[in-house]
Amino acid sequence: MSQSLTKTDRTTISRHAERGSYDRKAAWSIIDEALVAHVGLDTGKGVMVIPMTYARIGDEIVLHGAAASRWLSSFGDGRDISVCITLLDGLVLARSAFSHSMNYRSVVAFGRARLVTDPAEKQAAFRALLEHLLPGRWDDCRQPDAKEIAATTVIKLPLDEASVKVRSGPPKDAAKDMDLDYWAGVIPMALVAGEPVADAANRPGLPVPAYAMNYLRGA
Amino acid sequence: MSQSLTKTDRTTISRHAERGSYDRKAAWSIIDEALVAHVGLDTGKGVMVIPMTYARIGDEIVLHGAAASRWLSSFGDGRDISVCITLLDGLVLARSAFSHSMNYRSVVAFGRARLVTDPAEKQAAFRALLEHLLPGRWDDCRQPDAKEIAATTVIKLPLDEASVKVRSGPPKDAAKDMDLDYWAGVIPMALVAGEPVADAANRPGLPVPAYAMNYLRGA
Repeated sequence: MSQSLTKTDRTTISRHAERGSYDRKAAWSIIDEALVAHVGLDTGKGVMVIPMTYARIGDEIVLHGAAASRWLSSFGDGRDISVCITLLDGLVLARSAFSHSMNYRSVVAFGRARLVTDPAEKQAAFRALLEHLLPGRWDDCRQPDAKEIAATTVIKLPLDEASVKVRSGPPKDAAKDMDLDYWAGVIPMALVAGEPVADAANRPGLPVPAYAMNYLRGA
Repeated sequence: MSQSLTKTDRTTISRHAERGSYDRKAAWSIIDEALVAHVGLDTGKGVMVIPMTYARIGDEIVLHGAAASRWLSSFGDGRDISVCITLLDGLVLARSAFSHSMNYRSVVAFGRARLVTDPAEKQAAFRALLEHLLPGRWDDCRQPDAKEIAATTVIKLPLDEASVKVRSGPPKDAAKDMDLDYWAGVIPMALVAGEPVADAANRPGLPVPAYAMNYLRGA
């Protein structure tokens, strides 16, 4: 498999090209770290963007939803979708308003998703979705039965026509602004986990699983 | 102004309708708290979703970019866009894989953006964008000059045809799963600020501004 994603007219980064790349491993790393994807599709009545959970299996992004879902069921009609996954890393405060920015890592992918119909492949998708949410969880819950698998639509988007964009580091003011007496710098931002909150209906004495505590500790 | 957003075919929530609302104030609250919007548009070669900074001014969402930007310049052609703003609040661990979820708050808006051409209105948009990023910053940086304003495309999307979706609280397993010996609960998630990192090129002795420290403290 090529180390590089496929560069097309849609994925060519025209603004701040220095922030862009087509490195497959860089895309995987962002996708594996983030938790929410924003999925855009043509509803036939204009574009719609919605947040979704997802997972990566090899070189495909897995999305899922209720089989009764209005728009997931439209995937058979062969329209392209776009998936954007973004990690916010910091607020970039420059001396000039104009040069303010954010540090971020994002992936934008395009393509035609395929419907997954094989029950075993759907089961594997469920597993990937849970392990992406919280590694270790799949073996510590009741796994889906045939009815649940049938009630779930699973689609896979090839992660090929895609691009990566990353901004990092300090602000970049114009030379003429460097002597201004304004504080410049970065406020780091990160999505962090808090202390797990047990469901009041848990069976008595069930400890918080180690994998859930590890999340909090950033393990 | 109506307290309620406009419900149309596009904004009607069909899945988990109990999570949906059309409350304008609820939408504002989510929009004002989040930092990144995912914007979907029809490029003419399929849908594209990209991450953007934004601000809210009254009942409109402000977006901006370089005047030379390929796709921002396409807004004059009258195609609808969609903006989705999402806050992730927690990972919801249920006893069954099928009932896993996330706690989140999101807004999805649709509509036709208008190009802002008046320099004073563009300047006000800049101010809103900076104050959204970090309240207090606008008065503590060099404000945009005429050349920078001319080099920036500003668009505004009416926040009217929009919906809100919120999931909160504990997992909801099926009754038959409640006695299973799996730990269930919520891992809270939040985007948090770290200690501000001063630019190495700052003028000597410049303190971190109070508004930047307040961000860290959640003020």
